[in-house]
Amino acid sequence: MPELRKSPIMERWVIISTERGKRPIDFKMEKRTAKGGFCPFCYGNEDKTPPEVLAFRDPRSAPNTPGWKVRVVPNKFPALQIEGDLDKTGDGIYDMMRGVGAHEVLIESPDHKLNLAYLPDDHVESIFWALRDRCLDLQKDSRFRYILIFKNWGEEAGASLEHSHIQLIATPIIPKRAIEELEGSKFHYQLKERCIFCDIIKQETKEQKRIIYQNEYFMAIAPYASRFPFETWVMPRQHVSAFEQTPSEWFAQLAGIMKTVLRRLDIVLDEPPFNFIIHTAPCKTPDLDYYHWHIEIMPKLTRVAGFEWGSGFYINPTPPEDAAEALRNVDYVNGSQETVKQKVEE
Amino acid sequence: MPELRKSPIMERWVIISTERGKRPIDFKMEKRTAKGGFCPFCYGNEDKTPPEVLAFRDPRSAPNTPGWKVRVVPNKFPALQIEGDLDKTGDGIYDMMRGVGAHEVLIESPDHKLNLAYLPDDHVESIFWALRDRCLDLQKDSRFRYILIFKNWGEEAGASLEHSHIQLIATPIIPKRAIEELEGSKFHYQLKERCIFCDIIKQETKEQKRIIYQNEYFMAIAPYASRFPFETWVMPRQHVSAFEQTPSEWFAQLAGIMKTVLRRLDIVLDEPPFNFIIHTAPCKTPDLDYYHWHIEIMPKLTRVAGFEWGSGFYINPTPPEDAAEALRNVDYVNGSQETVKQKVEE
Repeated sequence: MPELRKSPIMERWVIISTERGKRPIDFKMEKRTAKGGFCPFCYGNEDKTPPEVLAFRDPRSAPNTPGWKVRVVPNKFPALQIEGDLDKTGDGIYDMMRGVGAHEVLIESPDHKLNLAYLPDDHVESIFWALRDRCLDLQKDSRFRYILIFKNWGEEAGASLEHSHIQLIATPIIPKRAIEELEGSKFHYQLKERCIFCDIIKQETKEQKRIIYQNEYFMAIAPYASRFPFETWVMPRQHVSAFEQTPSEWFAQLAGIMKTVLRRLDIVLDEPPFNFIIHTAPCKTPDLDYYHWHIEIMPKLTRVAGFEWGSGFYINPTPPEDAAEALRNVDYVNGSQETVKQKVEE
Repeated sequence: MPELRKSPIMERWVIISTERGKRPIDFKMEKRTAKGGFCPFCYGNEDKTPPEVLAFRDPRSAPNTPGWKVRVVPNKFPALQIEGDLDKTGDGIYDMMRGVGAHEVLIESPDHKLNLAYLPDDHVESIFWALRDRCLDLQKDSRFRYILIFKNWGEEAGASLEHSHIQLIATPIIPKRAIEELEGSKFHYQLKERCIFCDIIKQETKEQKRIIYQNEYFMAIAPYASRFPFETWVMPRQHVSAFEQTPSEWFAQLAGIMKTVLRRLDIVLDEPPFNFIIHTAPCKTPDLDYYHWHIEIMPKLTRVAGFEWGSGFYINPTPPEDAAEALRNVDYVNGSQETVKQKVEE
């Protein structure tokens, strides 16, 4: 059973994964591991994952067989385990609880090579529908306080399987970064009676220079205090505190803006590895006036970041205004949007 | 002039480095850059760095010529610049100040290939003396509020030059992680009238299982809530809040424990890239009862960490008890401590 341990110094919980239990020797071997040919996420290998919890599939196909478009399964090597009580325990100055939670994987499509940026519009939309469905379902479990949704793309961004996927982790604690964002936003609201994210959207609309792209319901910006080169935030332009509360009619545009932004990053940065994380309100909170859900995309560029995660101090060599300009004008680097279209049709 | 920008949402300042100004095209080219043969930190190239601010050298040698053992120079491409006023400015909801600060590099030895773990004991001790001298000197500047000392070793850990070095950045703000640690420790002290780090040392001494190594004045542990596999903290066993206030007679043992721990990490993990950071009290604080300086060492292991820096949520596949056991018993993996000695003598 994995353990959730709390730092005795600050509000930070860590999953100590005893099941996956990597022994020192494993780290040495990992360097030498070649990419295997077998993929548990491809058509025909459905029995190599735990049984699906959700799938959008051809109605004539049976569960856990080919015929699906988007498929969600429990992680075969979960960081947290679904069964059991939290069993909160103190041990002298230390605090822990059992690693109870859910860890699911959304397989974006049967195609082994494409990530969501290169799937048809309605397919990407259905990926976000599936995420919403899983959020709503997981929230019914009273042990869970937060649902963390994220994507690791590329080995350098931490992806351990090549086939494009998104992960969901439901946790019995609220992660540190989420607490900080919630508290920071609340402080601003108490002071001004306004949502800080709505304020950001207003100021960016006026200044224009950090806007990357926008459509009717969403805006993509390079944030003013970007930690990383080409950090990109996608935000609903109107106030909604939780991802799963987003009005249904906005989903097509969410899919559209994510495709556009991810493709432009690919053109400007030569298909970088990246992470994205959905920042959303905790489970079972009523609509919050002070918090505003959004997606943070972080391309992982060579040699950038090192001591940063240890210090919380970031040095960003690319002003966000320059990043936004490059992403607004994709021609800037190597040709028009056509380049991308060709790629998809290949 | 670089800018320091504050996140509008939380207490996080970021350096936006306009001078180093990486344009999108630079990131593409970086992938292809081969390692050059020229090293500005080697003997004979002293004129390729800004003039030294401190050097321990043969008394017959002239400044900025060979003959030194440890040398500190301003960074040629500083993240912050030494001249000017802070010029704090608001821009709507955003806050910034000019990127005023110091950015120095300590070159550990003339040897291009060895890092401090493989230098003679007294040489390593002199590295820590030099860091203390620079701390004391930089603290005289009333614009600086924190001195961040860190080492990036290996390209994957963010080192942009191969020759082993340590960096010092003096900043006009206190970095986020430092604020959190200070506040967390203060909270514990207010509750219990005890330093949380002294409490950790006491409990670890009793339990033994997370102790990696100790000598008379220092202790190395795998912390209870380790974020990363083989994360290692080196702490003075008696209470001292700031690195530069460490009693002189402890320095030989500080050098000794750092050498031992870094060598053992090399044996157990096959010379991993790593970062270490000195966590210390802010400038110009009197001795703090609630804070305790220490060094955090983070080996950077393949495929570990991905979305973590975006979420503040860590999944650690190696229980710290296992890591400590492996590092306590180096024979565990491939032979005795002799392996290391041979290496140094080669």
